[in-house]
Amino acid sequence: MKLSITAGKSFDMKEGVSIYETLKANSVFLVSPCGGKGTCGKCQVRVTSGGAVVRSYGKLGQKERDDGLVLACLTSADTDLQIEIPEHSKLVLGGKIAVSIFKDTAAYLKSYGLDFEPLAKRVSLTLPPPTISDNIGDLERLTRALAELGIANMQYSHGFTATVADIIRQGGFNATLSYSKTNNNTSFEAIAIYPQGQNPGRYGLAVDIGTTTVVVYLVDMADGTVIDTGSTYNSQTKYGDDVITRIINATEGGGLDDLRNTVVEDINTIVDFFSSKHNVKSSEIEAAVISGNTTMAHIFWGLNPAAIREDPYIPTLNYYPLWNGAQAKLSINPQATVFTIPGIASYVGGDIVSGILASKMHRSTGISLFMDIGTNAEVAIGNDEWIMTAACSAGPCFEGGGIKFGMRATQGAIESITIDPVTLTPSISVIGGGVPAGICGSGMIDAIVELFKTGIINQKGVFNRTKTPLVREGDEGLEFLIYKADNQQRDIVLTTVDMENLIRAKAAIFAGVSLLLREAGLTLDILEKVYVAGGFGNSLNVEKAVTFGMIPDLPAEKYVFLGNTSIIGAYLTLMSDTLRTELESIASKMTYIELSVVGDYMDEYMSAMFIPHTDLTKFPTVAAALGF
Amino acid sequence: MKLSITAGKSFDMKEGVSIYETLKANSVFLVSPCGGKGTCGKCQVRVTSGGAVVRSYGKLGQKERDDGLVLACLTSADTDLQIEIPEHSKLVLGGKIAVSIFKDTAAYLKSYGLDFEPLAKRVSLTLPPPTISDNIGDLERLTRALAELGIANMQYSHGFTATVADIIRQGGFNATLSYSKTNNNTSFEAIAIYPQGQNPGRYGLAVDIGTTTVVVYLVDMADGTVIDTGSTYNSQTKYGDDVITRIINATEGGGLDDLRNTVVEDINTIVDFFSSKHNVKSSEIEAAVISGNTTMAHIFWGLNPAAIREDPYIPTLNYYPLWNGAQAKLSINPQATVFTIPGIASYVGGDIVSGILASKMHRSTGISLFMDIGTNAEVAIGNDEWIMTAACSAGPCFEGGGIKFGMRATQGAIESITIDPVTLTPSISVIGGGVPAGICGSGMIDAIVELFKTGIINQKGVFNRTKTPLVREGDEGLEFLIYKADNQQRDIVLTTVDMENLIRAKAAIFAGVSLLLREAGLTLDILEKVYVAGGFGNSLNVEKAVTFGMIPDLPAEKYVFLGNTSIIGAYLTLMSDTLRTELESIASKMTYIELSVVGDYMDEYMSAMFIPHTDLTKFPTVAAALGF
Repeated sequence: MKLSITAGKSFDMKEGVSIYETLKANSVFLVSPCGGKGTCGKCQVRVTSGGAVVRSYGKLGQKERDDGLVLACLTSADTDLQIEIPEHSKLVLGGKIAVSIFKDTAAYLKSYGLDFEPLAKRVSLTLPPPTISDNIGDLERLTRALAELGIANMQYSHGFTATVADIIRQGGFNATLSYSKTNNNTSFEAIAIYPQGQNPGRYGLAVDIGTTTVVVYLVDMADGTVIDTGSTYNSQTKYGDDVITRIINATEGGGLDDLRNTVVEDINTIVDFFSSKHNVKSSEIEAAVISGNTTMAHIFWGLNPAAIREDPYIPTLNYYPLWNGAQAKLSINPQATVFTIPGIASYVGGDIVSGILASKMHRSTGISLFMDIGTNAEVAIGNDEWIMTAACSAGPCFEGGGIKFGMRATQGAIESITIDPVTLTPSISVIGGGVPAGICGSGMIDAIVELFKTGIINQKGVFNRTKTPLVREGDEGLEFLIYKADNQQRDIVLTTVDMENLIRAKAAIFAGVSLLLREAGLTLDILEKVYVAGGFGNSLNVEKAVTFGMIPDLPAEKYVFLGNTSIIGAYLTLMSDTLRTELESIASKMTYIELSVVGDYMDEYMSAMFIPHTDLTKFPTVAAALGF
Repeated sequence: MKLSITAGKSFDMKEGVSIYETLKANSVFLVSPCGGKGTCGKCQVRVTSGGAVVRSYGKLGQKERDDGLVLACLTSADTDLQIEIPEHSKLVLGGKIAVSIFKDTAAYLKSYGLDFEPLAKRVSLTLPPPTISDNIGDLERLTRALAELGIANMQYSHGFTATVADIIRQGGFNATLSYSKTNNNTSFEAIAIYPQGQNPGRYGLAVDIGTTTVVVYLVDMADGTVIDTGSTYNSQTKYGDDVITRIINATEGGGLDDLRNTVVEDINTIVDFFSSKHNVKSSEIEAAVISGNTTMAHIFWGLNPAAIREDPYIPTLNYYPLWNGAQAKLSINPQATVFTIPGIASYVGGDIVSGILASKMHRSTGISLFMDIGTNAEVAIGNDEWIMTAACSAGPCFEGGGIKFGMRATQGAIESITIDPVTLTPSISVIGGGVPAGICGSGMIDAIVELFKTGIINQKGVFNRTKTPLVREGDEGLEFLIYKADNQQRDIVLTTVDMENLIRAKAAIFAGVSLLLREAGLTLDILEKVYVAGGFGNSLNVEKAVTFGMIPDLPAEKYVFLGNTSIIGAYLTLMSDTLRTELESIASKMTYIELSVVGDYMDEYMSAMFIPHTDLTKFPTVAAALGF
């Protein structure tokens, strides 16, 4: 049985196997935040001929059904099938995305009052050539010379040892050794040895593995220069948008290896590109620091993440031993030291610890709030003595998940919306211009705040259908028409369900912040700074986010937007042993609060399910501006 | 161009490539102690048709040339070639050989006054199942439970860590951990974890990698039982008989990997056989101890041995870190702890250190001599306070190398000879009976002593051609006819060159012993015991070896034959942390004497080039018996 794509390839298809699975097996990936479970309604394809067996239409509305659309994950076939894949269903992977906000990371490290102490160190050794009366082994000779320099307890891996004899003779017993400190700082690990005369580079990687994006910095460890930065979408997205769908996929037979290889390949694609562009040998990349949430770090290392999603939510480990480049499967020196930023719990991972290091909040006596809003949201409150942290079940809706026309902030996304207070017609701004394909996070916040300000929705996000004919009946109840399409395109709307999801998400974030404050016995006014991190943070409009009730009603000058702090923390850790120790101290003093078991979580959450909140005293400037 | 073997296979052959190389490339191996360098004269083949290009006949005599024989390593072809391979040129690999002399190794370990403390240990853990309020990671939970049992500083490899989450859940958070102490005894390394209910075996390997033979013991680490013992010829023999030819082969392009894989495969063949026979899973083999000379240990681990044979003879290392089963490429648990017995120098390796542990001489206040006569010979003198050691350049002639009809002590070897004092005709005893194929070490010593006693050779090993017509003119000068062949077989003789080689070998051993004694400022009479080890040691006739002047003239009761002590030391090290520490202490107190640079080595050596010696006061009982 054949599955053919119009103006595309044909594949063998088995009876009972869905179009989605058949395409995936042939590396054709559809947008599918739910990972092919039939719940998100995004993997739409149009059947143009053949005997489709539609198990269910799922979320598809009548108009879409009339248009010949089905959900690929709920449809199989009993004869050859011809399909079309609409543009909005095609998953785009591997696109380049900008992330950095710190222009001069080396100067930023210096601002901690520290010099460079990179993960991979170098020492020049002049070994006395062996004689009959001084005939100890090469490795013992190395150890003796290191001891004379005060470097004791060097550990030698099998891979390293196999290179020693040839190399020290090539350099006439003069050699340069690369090595790193081990985690407990009581011993050292040999990475590589080079003969005198060779002057290899000493490079390191800072890697941020986000659920949605992967960012890699190539760093010259000799002087801390960031030689290049690269990023790509995490191709695991083809298995689902959030960590839960990834865990489900990993837990099913063989899935873990696939997921692991997928993200490793994303990283290696960037590393290989860097190596070629900058004439860096992979063997010269001697260290790497990996920062990611707990699930991402587990999958990166091939550790079964199943228990992360099962009550009581336990990772295999939070503190990672130092493993090596070969074990990480990275395109770097097989003996390279790979440090993984420690996590706190299943839903507060190394990316948050890394972010706190980058924010410096752990060095301040004043109390700060740290929020990382990405595919999910994590929050932390504290200072130089204590830090409390929690994960908010915000979900991926600000990155497009669970929103009918939601998408990431890429080409074709509506990124901002204003609604004329008189005519009630929307004006949109589209990334890259042209016909819009969907709405990204900042566009959604804009839209909901504008709809609220103009009275088209009420405090609960419920449409007032009498206000404007742009509020119309859709497949899922009332919806607001943001963009009226021509014949060939789709109308872009925000639905009642979208409103509910967005309000739930912001309520989860705000409830998290409120509860953490309460657990700490503090109130909002004590906060000196609010650090907002995450890819989302880059484009967030503070005033609108406050009006929405997503972030606390504090003066704008208290807000500091940091962008991707996970990658900056990884860089700092790569380039400073002192900051690596500081990072481990942050991790050890962070207290994780499981919000779902804190008694009044549901109260806080329900109170935040209004725009901006049921308790307007929490949003005094919003209340004043709206004239409440 | 084709190379065909009569009644055998045909292979492609290239112009200029020798028959020897062509056969080797097709896994047909010839006897070739020199490794195909044209010097040993053993890789004889008979050309029956075709255009052979004979670069040189090397050591072949006229009779052999008349018989159509050529040396395969010195002969190529310019047309298709048909050859016959005589039985005596065929290298037999993989045959089983008996080695053990200690019947009850577990009782022997107890005789040190010690209990079992195996390399791989087990501990049962009852972990409190995680809860929301006790939500640390699995590995941190393991570490906490171990700390409560006083086991601190457990190290976790990547491979181990990947198994933890599933296994502890399978057992309801009750698990059994296998682990070992690391080399410095300050930390531990996790090997494997099993869920409660599973009761896997805990097996270990003791492995002796000799230049000629490989011996493997499968040990139940729970009670010290040796479940099975196996041995095989070291298939590296196809690359040459001694360590020097192996090093040359390893140093040439790609050879190291071949040599490494060859011996690893020898070991794995035995291990796989054991696993199948005794229903042992390879994952249940959790530890191994490797004992071998420095070259064998280097090649086993894939370490370039080139510098071992270049003045000043330096190994990559003498003290091996603990590496694992995967790195060793063994058919055992990839995380298994593999301990390598430390060596002393390039020509006194771990096998000698292991042997000294097994001899117990390091525990005695009295001074003993230890001799390990194998493919080469090493000697050591000392007691519980000091040990001095040296390697004797004895070469492999007692195992057949460098002797025209020399062979190992296998089927067809003449193992003992007497010569009638009246008729001067020899009587021979052949291993396995039948037509003799050659002479093994004990046969050579028998022969030379009998020839000497009957006056057929003089003290220098020179033939008296007037004594008997059995002394005849051969291709290499005079020779003694030991066995007169029928038409189809070869006469077996001992040649003048053989005499010279045997006397050189015994002189090297005796000079080594004498010099070590002198360096220690001691004389022979102080020796309380002489331990003779090695495969050769099994069949050695003390009286004849003394008469030959190979071993000191001491009362028979001072001689203790231990057989293969390398494997026994490996067993002891596998089963006792205390003996492992004792072994390392032996290694650290052993002083290596490089005989070739001791001033009067040549004098001692030259003095020993007589039967039994120029200085008969050193052999009083021999002198008395012979009536000198």
